[in-house]
Amino acid sequence: MTELTIRPAGEADVPVILELIRALAEYERAPNEVVCDEARLRESLFGDKPDAEVLLACIGAEAAGFAVFFHNYSTWWGRRGIYLEDLFVRPEMRGRGIGKALLRALAVIARERDCARMEWSVLDWNQPAIDFYRTLGAIPKDEWTVYRLNRPEIEKLAG
Amino acid sequence: MTELTIRPAGEADVPVILELIRALAEYERAPNEVVCDEARLRESLFGDKPDAEVLLACIGAEAAGFAVFFHNYSTWWGRRGIYLEDLFVRPEMRGRGIGKALLRALAVIARERDCARMEWSVLDWNQPAIDFYRTLGAIPKDEWTVYRLNRPEIEKLAG
Repeated sequence: MTELTIRPAGEADVPVILELIRALAEYERAPNEVVCDEARLRESLFGDKPDAEVLLACIGAEAAGFAVFFHNYSTWWGRRGIYLEDLFVRPEMRGRGIGKALLRALAVIARERDCARMEWSVLDWNQPAIDFYRTLGAIPKDEWTVYRLNRPEIEKLAG
Repeated sequence: MTELTIRPAGEADVPVILELIRALAEYERAPNEVVCDEARLRESLFGDKPDAEVLLACIGAEAAGFAVFFHNYSTWWGRRGIYLEDLFVRPEMRGRGIGKALLRALAVIARERDCARMEWSVLDWNQPAIDFYRTLGAIPKDEWTVYRLNRPEIEKLAG
């Protein structure tokens, strides 16, 4: 197979990033929840102060998958960590170790930046993903549930 | 009662921030997991590129509680959100609306910064907290579990 490369995404990759975001939303059974467009991605990912970073996994020139991440923070460690917001490999490209290569590249970044930990969220029905993460030594934070306030409730609370 | 004020913490607040982190860890039944010290907090919270921000709730001059937060990112929105890492009010100061005042201050920041959402994690046994968050309209992300790689597993994966 053509060689797999992992590289940081640049501004020219915005169209393929949006395509991968949409493909992931489809896989997560929520295709209509993607409200961002190319302009929004360009501003948030490649502006003066990027809100997140993207790694692309490419087979030859084709983007086969991506990882979107940002830094979170642990008060117990007084140190930042890596939070992997999205990890996705196109269905037709699976079974070639692309997901693991993306996670490995992320682990290298976590080590370089002296991060305390790496975290990500997994849908409870996604058993193949869960099995894979367990082989890496990932520990589920079973005791915790994330709560979310959406914009209308934020407005109400802000008063 | 003396007036309640909410203000961003500054470098001079590092000792009381550490005290509140330790008190929260005690409440979460993990007092020995706090490994950071004042120097680490100073560097990570008040250096050139802070990893997180802190709001202090004060009754007169005394810090009664705090909120530690950073920005996360939603690919579906192409927009950052607020992730509340820690929210804590000293047990003897509870029942005065201090937690809600901290959350309200955070909602104001979220609105000002045009954030898509606010999120935080709750321990499943912390029913009083869950009941309170539900009154604000917070929605549990029941379908998701956070997985974590600690430093030894990161090193192993990075190779």
